Amino acid sequence: MSGAMTVRRSLPDAEILAFDRGHDASYSMCGIPMYLGGEVGDWRELVARSVEEFAAHDVRVRLRSEVVDIDAAARRVRVRDLQRGAEYEEPYDALLYAAGASPVVPDLPGVRRWGTPVRTLEHARQLHAVLEREQPGSAVVVGGGYIGVEVAEALVRRGVRATLIDRNPQVMDSLDEDVAAELAGILRDFGVDLRLGESLVGVEGDEDGRCRQVRTDRGRYEAQLLVLALGARPASRLAEAAGCRLGARGAIVVDERMRTGVDGIWAAGDCVESLHLVSAQPVNVQLGTHANKQGKVAGLDISAALSGSAARGAAAFPGVVGTAVTKVCEWEVGRTGLSLREAREAGLDAEAVLVEGTAKAGYLPEAGRLLVKLVGERGTGRVLGAQMLGSAGAAKRIDVAAVWCQLGVRVDDAQLHDLAYAPPFGSVWDLVQVAARKLSAELGLPSAL
Amino acid sequence: MSGAMTVRRSLPDAEILAFDRGHDASYSMCGIPMYLGGEVGDWRELVARSVEEFAAHDVRVRLRSEVVDIDAAARRVRVRDLQRGAEYEEPYDALLYAAGASPVVPDLPGVRRWGTPVRTLEHARQLHAVLEREQPGSAVVVGGGYIGVEVAEALVRRGVRATLIDRNPQVMDSLDEDVAAELAGILRDFGVDLRLGESLVGVEGDEDGRCRQVRTDRGRYEAQLLVLALGARPASRLAEAAGCRLGARGAIVVDERMRTGVDGIWAAGDCVESLHLVSAQPVNVQLGTHANKQGKVAGLDISAALSGSAARGAAAFPGVVGTAVTKVCEWEVGRTGLSLREAREAGLDAEAVLVEGTAKAGYLPEAGRLLVKLVGERGTGRVLGAQMLGSAGAAKRIDVAAVWCQLGVRVDDAQLHDLAYAPPFGSVWDLVQVAARKLSAELGLPSAL
Repeated sequence: MSGAMTVRRSLPDAEILAFDRGHDASYSMCGIPMYLGGEVGDWRELVARSVEEFAAHDVRVRLRSEVVDIDAAARRVRVRDLQRGAEYEEPYDALLYAAGASPVVPDLPGVRRWGTPVRTLEHARQLHAVLEREQPGSAVVVGGGYIGVEVAEALVRRGVRATLIDRNPQVMDSLDEDVAAELAGILRDFGVDLRLGESLVGVEGDEDGRCRQVRTDRGRYEAQLLVLALGARPASRLAEAAGCRLGARGAIVVDERMRTGVDGIWAAGDCVESLHLVSAQPVNVQLGTHANKQGKVAGLDISAALSGSAARGAAAFPGVVGTAVTKVCEWEVGRTGLSLREAREAGLDAEAVLVEGTAKAGYLPEAGRLLVKLVGERGTGRVLGAQMLGSAGAAKRIDVAAVWCQLGVRVDDAQLHDLAYAPPFGSVWDLVQVAARKLSAELGLPSAL
Repeated sequence: MSGAMTVRRSLPDAEILAFDRGHDASYSMCGIPMYLGGEVGDWRELVARSVEEFAAHDVRVRLRSEVVDIDAAARRVRVRDLQRGAEYEEPYDALLYAAGASPVVPDLPGVRRWGTPVRTLEHARQLHAVLEREQPGSAVVVGGGYIGVEVAEALVRRGVRATLIDRNPQVMDSLDEDVAAELAGILRDFGVDLRLGESLVGVEGDEDGRCRQVRTDRGRYEAQLLVLALGARPASRLAEAAGCRLGARGAIVVDERMRTGVDGIWAAGDCVESLHLVSAQPVNVQLGTHANKQGKVAGLDISAALSGSAARGAAAFPGVVGTAVTKVCEWEVGRTGLSLREAREAGLDAEAVLVEGTAKAGYLPEAGRLLVKLVGERGTGRVLGAQMLGSAGAAKRIDVAAVWCQLGVRVDDAQLHDLAYAPPFGSVWDLVQVAARKLSAELGLPSAL
């Protein structure tokens, strides 16, 4: 929709039509755990723009309308009206494919029937209704990524006994083991029953769709609710059928202007591949920040194309560095670039340091803990990634390291950047620069301070 | 002292001697307002390293010992023992001149007698003693920079009626007028009697040193305490006498390794000039962050020189971008680079945008206000500076813009950086990137999203 609105601003007379098989137009997926937890009282608050608001900008959105075929040669889509069952065709000059990603639902006994993914606003309403109506005493969440962790926390906040299961030996695969272990401790202290290295096997429930018992390879859990937070796969099938090339992870290959290579088709959002600027590898990162930026970049390029000029859109999407943050209980956790494990798996000669300090000057009351892990490359000396975990204000500190990763800054240059200091925000040496100093020495850089 | 400790680590056998005319070795100057306000209970908590702790590292610190002359040719200093009055000489191979800065005390009737600067830990103890002993009902703070604002807030916190006077029409000269006006509102709401565009004329007091009345060009204020927060001038006189070159603001000119140009003399900290990386002008920025980094850089270069090799120290101090933050009441304010006014005064073709948003997603309770001002240059398109004001977590967000300034990043590149997002920390478009988008358009960059 950010693409549609960008085209609207560039081309006031263009006819813009959007199809979505879902029930809602534009909403904050990331706010769903807060709605489940009760911090957000009404799902309508998560809606960024309604169909009516888009219509006011002369952008027509048709919900419950699934595009079932793209004829790229004829520049025509076939649309199924999911409410009436009818199908019809619509022509296009430019098509922005932004089908997102589909939640992974493992093919295990009872899971499809008694488990609920947490992906769309419709899922959120379903889960919320169960929580309100049935007041379940216990629930199982499968998948220990951001969403799973946030949902488990939300359930505990509501007074539901929550078991969080992940087959990996740690939560949040995107963090290194040491930082993830801290996070696991925080979750357990908050009351989440965390079961790591444990795999879902099946689920049993009632005839009326109510979950009863979740089975894993290690045990059985009585639960009135099973939430599936196992990630999502790029919804790229239809684009592939239209001739778009897919990458190794099944995401659509696009250039910097979000062109797919098929004439008249652009793609953006959770369904596309992006360049990871640190590893120089293609990745599929499903985040609203990228989707929104990519939509605007695509919108500018589509506008240029529709204007009939040969000019390309002025903006280019540079790629991503894998920045992500979340709040877990009263703690904030962020990561950017590559973890040490990821860096080594990518074949980089990586080293890391983990430093601990306080989020304020140590002499202030409630100075709070702050952990910083910084990863760098031997030889080039560049910052490869960072992870931070701490009390209030910690999360957005990751952005400094994100910019370092984005620009390939050397660790020993980073230690000398002019970062902000005042006692309420840390020590005279910012902790990420303490880490940079130590990492410079670790990497054998002679300019280590 | 960071220089001394760096030499100690590099050269375990070096004889290291430090002289200071003050009463304390190494302490947090920035923590003084929090000590005055009662948030820090004891001045000893502000001491980073005591004389005894330095001695344990075989670094000998002589307090109340003023270096009164430097004989650069003979490599010898003359030291006055301020307690005993005696003078003696000490030879050196390398001298690190780190005399800091001296508080400005205007030559106006009574000010020297009844006013107290707020610069050293000794000043802090004096002010604290008056506050505890005499429980003054009202106080005047002169100077609306960071320190003045922080001290005025601290006084109000203690229940003292505080009048803050500045001859400028705004508080915090380093902020643009619009952001400073927000801050003025915050201070007034907190209870600070803010008098802008008003100049100190004189002060009257008792024979026993107690202040009674402060006079300005606009009125008279009954006050039992007069705090002078008028900034400080580089204490460079002695270095100049030894042959070191001073810049336009009276600070010592040094190279990237903190060499003064006089054989055997390095300088670091509040007394030196630094390169401002955005304006490319020399500046004198008095902050512990720079002092500490410069000390280490000097220490490495001194170690290299003392090792007898011709090699220079491996680390070089790159310069500053003017990053600074503070907490004012429950608000955080940060700035980096050049303000719009500074940029235009420096002859740059600058534009700025001011955007307002929330520190969390708007649908969360207590989302909090966040203001971002971003300054950019027409033509080059680079980020020239930023100012931020907001609720919890706002201050350290300035660091992203600091790195942009440090590296000369273009505004339209900045809008596409992979910054962190989750609902507890803002909107899907980080507010500083919303500002970058708008500023890109304002600067006429075609790639504006």
